[in-house]
This record gives sequence, structure tokens and C-alpha cells, in this order.
Amino acid sequence: MGQPLNSPQLQRIAITPAQQHDRHIDLNSQQIHYLSRVLRLKPGDRFIALNGQGQWWLAELADDTSATVLESIPIHTELSRSVILLVAMPKGNGMDDIVRQVTELGVATIVPLLSDRTLLHPSPHKLERWRRIAQEATEQSERQLIPTVTEPRSLGQAIETWNSETAHCYLCLARGSHPHLLGCLQTAQPQTPIVLATGPEGGWTPTEVDQAIAASYQPVSLGKRVLRTLTAPAMALALIAARLESDG
Amino acid sequence: MGQPLNSPQLQRIAITPAQQHDRHIDLNSQQIHYLSRVLRLKPGDRFIALNGQGQWWLAELADDTSATVLESIPIHTELSRSVILLVAMPKGNGMDDIVRQVTELGVATIVPLLSDRTLLHPSPHKLERWRRIAQEATEQSERQLIPTVTEPRSLGQAIETWNSETAHCYLCLARGSHPHLLGCLQTAQPQTPIVLATGPEGGWTPTEVDQAIAASYQPVSLGKRVLRTLTAPAMALALIAARLESDG
Repeated sequence: MGQPLNSPQLQRIAITPAQQHDRHIDLNSQQIHYLSRVLRLKPGDRFIALNGQGQWWLAELADDTSATVLESIPIHTELSRSVILLVAMPKGNGMDDIVRQVTELGVATIVPLLSDRTLLHPSPHKLERWRRIAQEATEQSERQLIPTVTEPRSLGQAIETWNSETAHCYLCLARGSHPHLLGCLQTAQPQTPIVLATGPEGGWTPTEVDQAIAASYQPVSLGKRVLRTLTAPAMALALIAARLESDG
Repeated sequence: MGQPLNSPQLQRIAITPAQQHDRHIDLNSQQIHYLSRVLRLKPGDRFIALNGQGQWWLAELADDTSATVLESIPIHTELSRSVILLVAMPKGNGMDDIVRQVTELGVATIVPLLSDRTLLHPSPHKLERWRRIAQEATEQSERQLIPTVTEPRSLGQAIETWNSETAHCYLCLARGSHPHLLGCLQTAQPQTPIVLATGPEGGWTPTEVDQAIAASYQPVSLGKRVLRTLTAPAMALALIAARLESDG
């Protein structure tokens, strides 16, 4: 083929375990349409299949409805630690952009929050949409794992699941004098997940802040400027990814 | 008033030097509409006027067309170093999002690049739009300075202006093995501006990379995942801002 294995020219397609039987991949109608009609691949042409759980394979289109696995592709594009983002849902379609950006930046789990100041109850359709965006962004950013997008819940409910017993937890605050997230990140215990909570427009309510601090969430700052609800999660993820992947 | 001086409840409005005569501010028709019709402020109500060049004032609506400066507001929300972003313009309206996000994150100058792989020649209307977005994001993020959005140019032309003689320059590369930007950032000379170049979809051409390296741009990585043209500038700015504002 003349192309390196993970050449950017090779299309990446996420498949489910149910689609794969040994070296045989059953393509679904959406994948068939995309590979054959949009990309105009023919039998014998290659693409990359990923199962969203860590593995990539070089695959070859066999016929109009299936593909064959040729070989496993070694790939290491995941962060060394699991990052869970508790994110207050912004109005409108802002959550689409958040899911796309934090997926590119390496998040493992996205927990949409119904915060006291934003009570957007997303439809099942919306949740489905965010999961599709997470899958697309995984393919495009060449990640191995598709982030989980959980059902929405309140900050209080999220804290019951993610707290200092199992993770290092940080609460991002837009105002007040708090240490900077970059300086606070604990990198000493590489197995411990990192939990980050970013608030809604207008900020967390005092009740929410108290609740998080009582559960040992560390209040942190993302700098002197006031970030939108879309930018704060991206900045927080960028800092964690950089801290885990650089020596600086 | 019972409100702290830089209360989030007080609206921030950018004014030009020509609008201000001592303590008197002539409001333009857009500002009058916004303050009187949208926010429904009445004479005697207060807002924050900023000149985009570093200063904030507490101001009071005097009548339907003017306001009075009451006092200067001390504010320090700017990065300690000037950050210049050379950014290859993405297709569509992607540049809108980039300008908004990097303004929130503290950029000083945005230089739209006509790169070899994307030759989007923006209309004067587009440039005007980006400048308006930079102003709005400055008001919303509570910055002191409105970033400059320059005329578009090629990477070669940008390098003639911004190079190692006057700045620390970094070229962000999506592929290949390069040191991470976070570990490379030189913080030793606080007066030296930082120049960052982020590429188009498909990456820089080899010619562009050679050109930048010849001008002492340091090739850097933003991590193991492939970031969209919209996410790379945000991540780069987030890292610089965090490095300058944290002890970590």
C-alpha cells in the first residue's frame, strides 16, 4: 500500500464487539454508506477499525457488507490516568462543543450535571447525540477509547459516586482566590483517577460549593479571566493532559 | 449600590478613546440600545466602561446618550507576557470560535494565516467580525486589553515580523516526536513575548516547517492525540496562561 499503518489517510471506523467475529467484521448500513459511497473504497482497500476499548486493527474491505482484519496496530494515545469531567450543561447546543473538545483532549468519562443554576433536562435524543459526537471525535483524534457519556445527574448525586475515597477531586471556581489547577494537580499516584467539576454560567451556588468541599473536592482556579462554560472544561482537560504527558 | 465594584452583575462596555472626554462618555447608538433597551438601565444606573487598553472605570448613565465616569477600577486580569498566536484559518466559521476562545484565554495578538494547505482569503467583513468577537469576549471574560486581530498573511510573512530576535517562538506539530509545549515554555525572561504557530487541517507543509525552524521556531507537541484546528490554539493558550499564572 505504501502508506504507514496509522497514516492520516487511512479512515478510522469504530465498531462494536457484536460486529466482530474473529477476523471478520460485519459492517452496518451507516459504515457501508460511508466507506463505499462517501470515501469510495473498493474491496481490497484498507481502513482502520477500532473497538473503542483500546484496540486498533488494520482492516480490508472484503465485499459490500464486510471487512477482514489484517493485523493489530500498536497505538498509545490515551492519558495515563482516567479523567472524569462533571460538567454543568450550558444552554443551547454548547454541550456538543464541550463533548467534542474534551474528547480530543483525552477525557474518559463525561457526566452532564443538572446544577442548581441550570436545569436543562436533556432529551434522550440529546444524550444519544453527545455519545455519537464522542465516538466521532475519538475516531478523528486517533484515540483508543471512546469516552463514556453518563446519564445527567445533580452535583450531589455525582459526588456520591466520585469522591476522595477513589479519586483526586477538583472543583473549578471562576471567582475568589484559589490555587491554580496546574499547580495543584497531584501526579504522585498514577493509578488514581482525576475528577474535575466545572460550573454553569453564573457559577455554582454556595450550597454546591459547600457540598463539594465537604466531600474533599479541592477548590481551584483556572486563571484571572472569567471563562465561558465551554472554555473552562477544555482548559482544565488541556492542563491535565499536558501535566501527564510532559516533563515540565 | 451594595454591589462590589467588579460585580458580575455590572455590565462591561468597551469604549474608544474618542468617546471619552474627561469624565464624560458619549455613547454610540449600539451602546445606547444595549444599555437602555436590552438591559433597561435608567439614568443613575451603573456599568463598567473599559477602554480596551488596560483601564476600567465605574460609570453611571447620565441621560439617554451619555454617561459619567465615577472612579477608576483597579483590575489585573492580563497575562504577564504578550502572547502572539499565528493561526492557520480553518474552513467555515471555525475562526469565530478560535478568536473567542483564545481571547478568553489571554492572547494579545491574533494573526490569521494563509497557510499552504488552506488559502481561505477572508473578506474585510470577516475580519471586522473577528474584531467584534474579540471585543465581546474581552468584555465577557473581564479582560483589560482587547486583542489585536491583524490582516491575514502567509507564515513566511509572519515570520519576518515575529521571530527569535524579539520573541520565544514555538511551532505546534500534530505528528512526529517533539517535546511537549508545557515542558518547553521558557519563563525566565518575563519581558519576552511568546509566539505560537498552529497549523491547518492536514498540517503544515514541509516547506513551512523548514521555514519556521530556520527562523528558530521550536517544534513542539500538544500531546498524543490529533487536535482539530479549533482545539490546538485553545490548548496552547491554556498551557501558556497556566504556566504564567500558577506556581506549578
